[in-house]
Amino acid sequence: LKVDLNSDLGESFGHYSIGNDAEIINLVTSVNIACGFHAGDPDVMAQTVKKAETAGIGIGAHPGYSDLQGFGRRRMNMSLIEVQHMITYQVGALEAFTKTKKLHHVKPHGALYNAAAQDHELALAVCRGIQAVDSELPLYGLANSELINAAKEVGIPYVQEVFGDRNYEADGTLVSRARPNAVITDPTTIAQRVVKMIEDQTVTAVSGQKVALKPDSVCVHGDNQAALAIVKTLRTALKEDGIKTETW
Amino acid sequence: LKVDLNSDLGESFGHYSIGNDAEIINLVTSVNIACGFHAGDPDVMAQTVKKAETAGIGIGAHPGYSDLQGFGRRRMNMSLIEVQHMITYQVGALEAFTKTKKLHHVKPHGALYNAAAQDHELALAVCRGIQAVDSELPLYGLANSELINAAKEVGIPYVQEVFGDRNYEADGTLVSRARPNAVITDPTTIAQRVVKMIEDQTVTAVSGQKVALKPDSVCVHGDNQAALAIVKTLRTALKEDGIKTETW
Amino acid sequence: LKVDLNSDLGESFGHYSIGNDAEIINLVTSVNIACGFHAGDPDVMAQTVKKAETAGIGIGAHPGYSDLQGFGRRRMNMSLIEVQHMITYQVGALEAFTKTKKLHHVKPHGALYNAAAQDHELALAVCRGIQAVDSELPLYGLANSELINAAKEVGIPYVQEVFGDRNYEADGTLVSRARPNAVITDPTTIAQRVVKMIEDQTVTAVSGQKVALKPDSVCVHGDNQAALAIVKTLRTALKEDGIKTETW
Amino acid sequence: LKVDLNSDLGESFGHYSIGNDAEIINLVTSVNIACGFHAGDPDVMAQTVKKAETAGIGIGAHPGYSDLQGFGRRRMNMSLIEVQHMITYQVGALEAFTKTKKLHHVKPHGALYNAAAQDHELALAVCRGIQAVDSELPLYGLANSELINAAKEVGIPYVQEVFGDRNYEADGTLVSRARPNAVITDPTTIAQRVVKMIEDQTVTAVSGQKVALKPDSVCVHGDNQAALAIVKTLRTALKEDGIKTETW
Repeated sequence: LKVDLNSDLGESFGHYSIGNDAEIINLVTSVNIACGFHAGDPDVMAQTVKKAETAGIGIGAHPGYSDLQGFGRRRMNMSLIEVQHMITYQVGALEAFTKTKKLHHVKPHGALYNAAAQDHELALAVCRGIQAVDSELPLYGLANSELINAAKEVGIPYVQEVFGDRNYEADGTLVSRARPNAVITDPTTIAQRVVKMIEDQTVTAVSGQKVALKPDSVCVHGDNQAALAIVKTLRTALKEDGIKTETW
Repeated sequence: LKVDLNSDLGESFGHYSIGNDAEIINLVTSVNIACGFHAGDPDVMAQTVKKAETAGIGIGAHPGYSDLQGFGRRRMNMSLIEVQHMITYQVGALEAFTKTKKLHHVKPHGALYNAAAQDHELALAVCRGIQAVDSELPLYGLANSELINAAKEVGIPYVQEVFGDRNYEADGTLVSRARPNAVITDPTTIAQRVVKMIEDQTVTAVSGQKVALKPDSVCVHGDNQAALAIVKTLRTALKEDGIKTETW
Repeated sequence: LKVDLNSDLGESFGHYSIGNDAEIINLVTSVNIACGFHAGDPDVMAQTVKKAETAGIGIGAHPGYSDLQGFGRRRMNMSLIEVQHMITYQVGALEAFTKTKKLHHVKPHGALYNAAAQDHELALAVCRGIQAVDSELPLYGLANSELINAAKEVGIPYVQEVFGDRNYEADGTLVSRARPNAVITDPTTIAQRVVKMIEDQTVTAVSGQKVALKPDSVCVHGDNQAALAIVKTLRTALKEDGIKTETW
Repeated sequence: LKVDLNSDLGESFGHYSIGNDAEIINLVTSVNIACGFHAGDPDVMAQTVKKAETAGIGIGAHPGYSDLQGFGRRRMNMSLIEVQHMITYQVGALEAFTKTKKLHHVKPHGALYNAAAQDHELALAVCRGIQAVDSELPLYGLANSELINAAKEVGIPYVQEVFGDRNYEADGTLVSRARPNAVITDPTTIAQRVVKMIEDQTVTAVSGQKVALKPDSVCVHGDNQAALAIVKTLRTALKEDGIKTETW
């Protein structure tokens, strides 16, 4: 058994620093690097790619809405073709900073990720934007979501992503952050949930029902010390259960 | 004998249209496409690349300062590494829209072009930004300028560019636009100058002295009907003198 | 009887020109000037305010979403307080260019106008953003819409706006542009509709029902010659029927 | 004897936080609030103005180049009229967030401040941009610099600013940051220098010569704990010497 741990990186911008890139980079097997639209700038991108290359982990593009003020977390009503081209642009820009000129994956960011997980047409636009750059470049998308369906339809590889720190609905979607029980914060609980997801290929929804899912990659965070503690607890638990952390 | 005719394209942005792309594209052998910083956006880039692919002409990136309001014509005091990364970003973004994932050339835009033509360190930064994407990707730079010197030093290919509609100083630089005799507007005079440059590999400076230069590519414009008339007159003159229009 | 004719102005940006400001400014009694977020820049704003002051017409701010690429026509999922502050910022910026430091009105632009016309909370945020600058500054809003309701609730003055070139639903909203019968293009029909609205204080909806409305101001356009022809026909019709064109 | 202590505030942007606004605001008598071009956004501006109003200190606009990535520290080659309008825009936007619709002062930021301190024409453009908003609104500018000369020429009030943590040249300019002795870091030395400047109306240049200057306001920083310690030491020294901290 094995699993990929992915995290967002390179979210600083100009004079503004954010995140604990130096710490989290050693705890994950792949990273999603901001591409200058919702966060990141060409200097941050160059430095972050270099760090990830040194760490020998999977380098993914993390394209988002062109909204630095909102950090890509505010949905924008763009046309499908605008979304497609916006993805191609950002993926190409990040790829240019790599030594190999080959990215490991693409994971849409924030409001774009959430919207495309539920909107098939939008998810298709995201996938077509990736495909235009490299038809063998995998999408990271919410397990069972429209992102995965769209990747299948468009014909690009995909990696199903799960969240150890989020509760699930019976239909496999995440419980909305507007609800009090959306987020799980206890490191041990999170670690146990992830191990169980990997071993059973299911997750227990808030309703008590079991939801089948394929946990190819787990999304983890490095925003603060609590987040880093969660990742360390998770890595220990995975190791104890003989689950390798390895990317695709 | 042969020469390349290049022109800036894809300078529209969102709701704003500019230039006569549809007309000029059929009169040139290579194009410089704006990359979203001083002009252009992902949609305009996608459409312009497609048009250039259909026309079968050389597709170049045209990176500029991040200054849409100033159309990239206002010099910005960026550090060398910032310039380098800004170039890599824009070149990578444009390349992603091509079918072949291979650009024909890179020509810096506006204030960046002019500043780098005279500033060796800045020119090196531009060349290193290109080299990071593709070490075989040629730079278009002002003939005899620091851009050409930098390309030689960095070890990337280069194409020497000349201007038929501009007067030259005895040192091979262009007469400043601040001077009354900077620009030549008569189509026949321009055409004769270009033919002479190609045949003699020299240009006569305003001082009367002859300046040696290698006219690999001629910069032409499609902004208005007068500009298009100049290109047509030039093409006729080249044909009559048996000079082929062909890119590198 | 009297009516105000208002039009959007100052939508150029940097190197990009748009609209027929010089022509339309002489045909209207008030203008809505873009504030640099969806269109316009400080130079365009300064010039446009000066032209409107010379013409002696009502100078309004025309704030929109921070989305130059989308020309403010793409809805953005901003929080209410973000919208409020964004309005205050843009209104203050435009006011600073006037001689009197007093604006005539504020009319939200594009997607923000349309969204706030239907969303009471969003409309309140717009009105509070205006009120923060000047509690006596009137809002221009779609007649009978949530914008008017919000202005009443917040306690700022308002001007009810009607569209001569758009069909109405029985509930007083505009027929969606997605429908084939959304827009009316015949100048005479438009002129007659507007005259009738002013004289009867009603408009006939596509269903045939009469909808009561108070046509304080008519929105007109100057984008092209057809649009200008409509305004001229409308002005002639208003004059013939003894309706004065005058702002509030 | 009295002196004003001023500091830059409200430099956060969207998701990005910077500075110790909550601490420094209680140690100064006037603040310079970023206006959304080089730092700050409408939300940060609204919150910062409110905090400064609560603290009862002088609220100044801190306009800078439109360059968030460079934090306004990269000189841009804008035309004089572009600079003037850019100032008017930013000052107007900030003023709109105040309760009184009256600012206390304007201090240009970063590269614009430094460039205008030495370039009379640029300084005139800055002053005219302020004057367009409010002809009684004072400029904060480097003591003895072109900013002060321009304010006199244009006819707006001015406040001469000194730096306790910077060495001076014999001509009254600051020692360039490129030089090793540009910055003074010892809190006691800084405090003594400032007290001496106020009592003697001179500063000793690195050459040993005395330079006459009028220290109306001292620029202090709140970026980190060391900076805050300097301000506290300075305030203690001023108090001991009977110099009141009070704004203009």
